[in-house]
Amino acid sequence: VPSLIRRLFGRGSRPRPSAPHVHPRSEAIAVARVELAELAPPSKVYLGQLAYLTLVLFENLSRAVTLAPTTQAKTSLSRATAEVLEAHEALIRELEDSGADPVVAMEPFRAELDDFRRRTQGADYPETLVTCYLTGGFLTDFFAGLAAGLPKALGERVSTVLDIDAGQDALVAELRTAIDASARLASRLAMWGRRLVGDTMLVARSSLVIGGRLPGEERIEPVFTELISAHTRRMDALGLTA
Amino acid sequence: VPSLIRRLFGRGSRPRPSAPHVHPRSEAIAVARVELAELAPPSKVYLGQLAYLTLVLFENLSRAVTLAPTTQAKTSLSRATAEVLEAHEALIRELEDSGADPVVAMEPFRAELDDFRRRTQGADYPETLVTCYLTGGFLTDFFAGLAAGLPKALGERVSTVLDIDAGQDALVAELRTAIDASARLASRLAMWGRRLVGDTMLVARSSLVIGGRLPGEERIEPVFTELISAHTRRMDALGLTA
Repeated sequence: VPSLIRRLFGRGSRPRPSAPHVHPRSEAIAVARVELAELAPPSKVYLGQLAYLTLVLFENLSRAVTLAPTTQAKTSLSRATAEVLEAHEALIRELEDSGADPVVAMEPFRAELDDFRRRTQGADYPETLVTCYLTGGFLTDFFAGLAAGLPKALGERVSTVLDIDAGQDALVAELRTAIDASARLASRLAMWGRRLVGDTMLVARSSLVIGGRLPGEERIEPVFTELISAHTRRMDALGLTA
Repeated sequence: VPSLIRRLFGRGSRPRPSAPHVHPRSEAIAVARVELAELAPPSKVYLGQLAYLTLVLFENLSRAVTLAPTTQAKTSLSRATAEVLEAHEALIRELEDSGADPVVAMEPFRAELDDFRRRTQGADYPETLVTCYLTGGFLTDFFAGLAAGLPKALGERVSTVLDIDAGQDALVAELRTAIDASARLASRLAMWGRRLVGDTMLVARSSLVIGGRLPGEERIEPVFTELISAHTRRMDALGLTA
């Protein structure tokens, strides 16, 4: 599942002097995957939660499309939205193929994820872009890691589903333009990013609990250490302090 | 291009006693098509406007997904959103294949269509559903008719692109449930539908003007007569008075 960060960081054309060396997603996931494999919830729980989460990522991206001030931004963000919808539909099909009712499988996650969306949607266009970029990146990494704990064939299919760009290029391009133009905006978005990571970690953590186990902190800690490192690199890529 | 109304009205399972016989979309379009063929703007103008319009239809549908109160409604409306995005992307590819810059081709239509979207987005979930249903139906009919005036091969490809359901089934199902439960809501939505058709006709009419000609009323009248008949049938399908 390397394409997201590879596409994001693999472009040599616009290096930022202050940005540290960034690792491809595969590295972060490789570590997290080992830790996460045994924490994965049952397949139906996993698929139901991830299917509803892709709806939330879709809602955030479509909000960004509506708020976008240029035709260029609208059409490139709409491409990202289509990718997330394709992932949602693939997960719905996985649920159907397993004999589950997709709506029933998603329902238990609606209240928490809707609440997460409302708290994290952002007050304006730049904040919404940061939300799409950071929560989308964090939670896609997290669920890609968890997929290692699913039955093998299903885990591989889900990894392919999650191998999406989700507009990271477009999000970073839009954000860099805005941040480079305003130190005040940079400061506000850095604060917003710090708040987002807290809310996002709560969502990730609750999905481990919903799996029926309550893993101890010593199990969860290494997972989040890796995911937070990836989060910090995303902030660095924007020139923001995590 | 029959599927939209065929799918909408072709289901015999829930007949409404008060609803008149409704015609398949192909009939309305067949008449409008004859009238519209000679009014079609140049291909690039047509494609640019329709590409931006599909973004607007997408924004309305994605707003409905966000406002939807149930998981079932969210996931079925998200399917409709994906269809509209596929149409948008197909139109972007048509522009690219013709050597045009899609963003440059869409740009002239942004201000008017953004304004149209803001005026017609609706104050709440039911109004937004009505907007998606009525403006999506009217403008898809209109552009499907205009496509007859494009170069033959392009016109056929565009007709295929516009042969989308755009969530009409899901929209009608959601609206019927809400309307059947509240006479007061029915009255409010009937008024909303009447206002929408005015704003929607203005958008359609301006696209004829932008084509470089200013066709006389006698040319435009028969076209709109057909499109308004289709609009009335959509209102009837909801049990609302047009």
